[in-house]
Amino acid sequence: MKVTARAHTNIALIKYWGKRDKKLFLPYNSSLSLTLDAFYTDTTVSFIDQKEDVFLLNGELQSKEETQKISTFIQRFRDLSSLEKKVKVESWNHVPTAAGLASSASAYAALAMALNELFQLSLSKEELSIYARQGSGSSTRSLFGGFVEWQKGTKQDGTDSYAVPILAPEECPVGMIFCLINQEKKKISSREGMNRTVETSPFYSGWVESAATDLVQMKKAIAKKDIPMIGELTEKSALKMHATTLGANPPFTYLEPFSWEVIRKVQEWRQEGHTCYATMDAGPNVKILCPKEEISLLQQKIKETFPNLETICSLPGSGAQILSIEKNEKKKGY
Amino acid sequence: MKVTARAHTNIALIKYWGKRDKKLFLPYNSSLSLTLDAFYTDTTVSFIDQKEDVFLLNGELQSKEETQKISTFIQRFRDLSSLEKKVKVESWNHVPTAAGLASSASAYAALAMALNELFQLSLSKEELSIYARQGSGSSTRSLFGGFVEWQKGTKQDGTDSYAVPILAPEECPVGMIFCLINQEKKKISSREGMNRTVETSPFYSGWVESAATDLVQMKKAIAKKDIPMIGELTEKSALKMHATTLGANPPFTYLEPFSWEVIRKVQEWRQEGHTCYATMDAGPNVKILCPKEEISLLQQKIKETFPNLETICSLPGSGAQILSIEKNEKKKGY
Repeated sequence: MKVTARAHTNIALIKYWGKRDKKLFLPYNSSLSLTLDAFYTDTTVSFIDQKEDVFLLNGELQSKEETQKISTFIQRFRDLSSLEKKVKVESWNHVPTAAGLASSASAYAALAMALNELFQLSLSKEELSIYARQGSGSSTRSLFGGFVEWQKGTKQDGTDSYAVPILAPEECPVGMIFCLINQEKKKISSREGMNRTVETSPFYSGWVESAATDLVQMKKAIAKKDIPMIGELTEKSALKMHATTLGANPPFTYLEPFSWEVIRKVQEWRQEGHTCYATMDAGPNVKILCPKEEISLLQQKIKETFPNLETICSLPGSGAQILSIEKNEKKKGY
Repeated sequence: MKVTARAHTNIALIKYWGKRDKKLFLPYNSSLSLTLDAFYTDTTVSFIDQKEDVFLLNGELQSKEETQKISTFIQRFRDLSSLEKKVKVESWNHVPTAAGLASSASAYAALAMALNELFQLSLSKEELSIYARQGSGSSTRSLFGGFVEWQKGTKQDGTDSYAVPILAPEECPVGMIFCLINQEKKKISSREGMNRTVETSPFYSGWVESAATDLVQMKKAIAKKDIPMIGELTEKSALKMHATTLGANPPFTYLEPFSWEVIRKVQEWRQEGHTCYATMDAGPNVKILCPKEEISLLQQKIKETFPNLETICSLPGSGAQILSIEKNEKKKGY
């Protein structure tokens, strides 16, 4: 049997920043994201009669190290099903390489979705998000479409740290424009950045407390479909996350001077009456949140202001889904 | 009698950021600065037979509002001396207008110094720093030269919140290069910025705590004349101060994209083996701390990298001093 699943990437509006358990990927704060249609991963899984799992990414066989990560991930599904079969994983990332965007969110969500079907586990998406989480924290949220909350949970074993859908993609009133500031590999991974911040930044406890308040406000804003309130909370959460890294020891920042130029322009446009808000993750790229209807106009405005800045528009995307199930006619050759 | 006093400006290495008492200018955290020789204020005071104090700045008669501030300041000296005479204040700020640098630090220090002599109060510099403080917080530190600590104090009346000298200017191993990023008047005054941060930023308590630790480390670094340690603590304190404003509500920043470009260059040069560190106050200008001997070389390097960036070098400056005392020959005309 060959199962193919697709999952879209997501961008947090209330950021996930810092793990209380590094092994189980348990966060200190709940986060809230928008799943996006522009970037996704398609993953095909099948059983193989080999001694080890096999992992191909974009058609290329991956290193032992990369395969080991995937094997550890698959093992949880094997344990659940008691089927000790090895698996071939073929993944295609439809994330423009130039985008400098993390594909791990869509990758682990698609893989969890596909393995659920292959091992006939019938886990719910909430349950699957617990497994996806253990591959990459933010992948938890890619199981669902539209606005999604990743509830941090309080249990030590992480069984209450999962994603829940907040608003379906067709109901979400906003889209996002990705501004590709710099596509170089970042010097400090988000994992390393988070850990350094948790361990050394005097601002970390303030971050955790204010993220909780912001999340409550954000859910109210979403319930009212209040775009300015959604946007303001989004920009504030991003600025706060990036402020925490300036307090780390040694201090660091993911933002480049040009990131700040774009952020400033977004704030200026807002003063002029436009509805647009900036958010940035563990990298220099700036994403601009705006009403769906204004996305083209705004992209044009960016082009006029920064002619050399590459941009990609995205609307709310759907949750992880099974694309196809191909039954293997085992006896065909006989 | 005509008394003329001079005081130099200072730049905090461990920043002062936030008041626990807005009226008495009492800070939440102790700070530590370097008094600089490049910028200063000369102030002449004399008694006049008029109904109100008179205040001239750079030769121009000042508004009622500005004069009222100065009168409130002078009143404390009148109260101490029981002399109810009105005063004429003539101030000259030797701070390049283009520098966009606050001159209030040197202004109130010079005025306090001059009034002490005019009213024959014989207050010590420590005591004078308590009065200067009530004109402008940072002026407290301009009473002394070189490295100066402003001890925050704990008393409600502010009598234990004053400056103490840490290291004489000739002993200080560092100088500073001012990079004049933008000379426009800032939109958010430091007073307003501080208050908003104290009241709304979730990072403020972290700031206060870490400033205390940084100050202890800084005094150790100064005792050892350990320039890299002095520099690292300086840059960290500045980054932390600016991080707190990103968490304020609404968020704000004094730094411009170009400020970040200069900061990044300073960090790059350090990677290349240069000894230089950035610090920024409530404005976009970046000041670069470096060993005295390397100041010219570094200024040259800045010129090569940013040909249009105006820079001013400064070495450690001396404390406030009396320049001249002119006795009035009252009977001369008879």
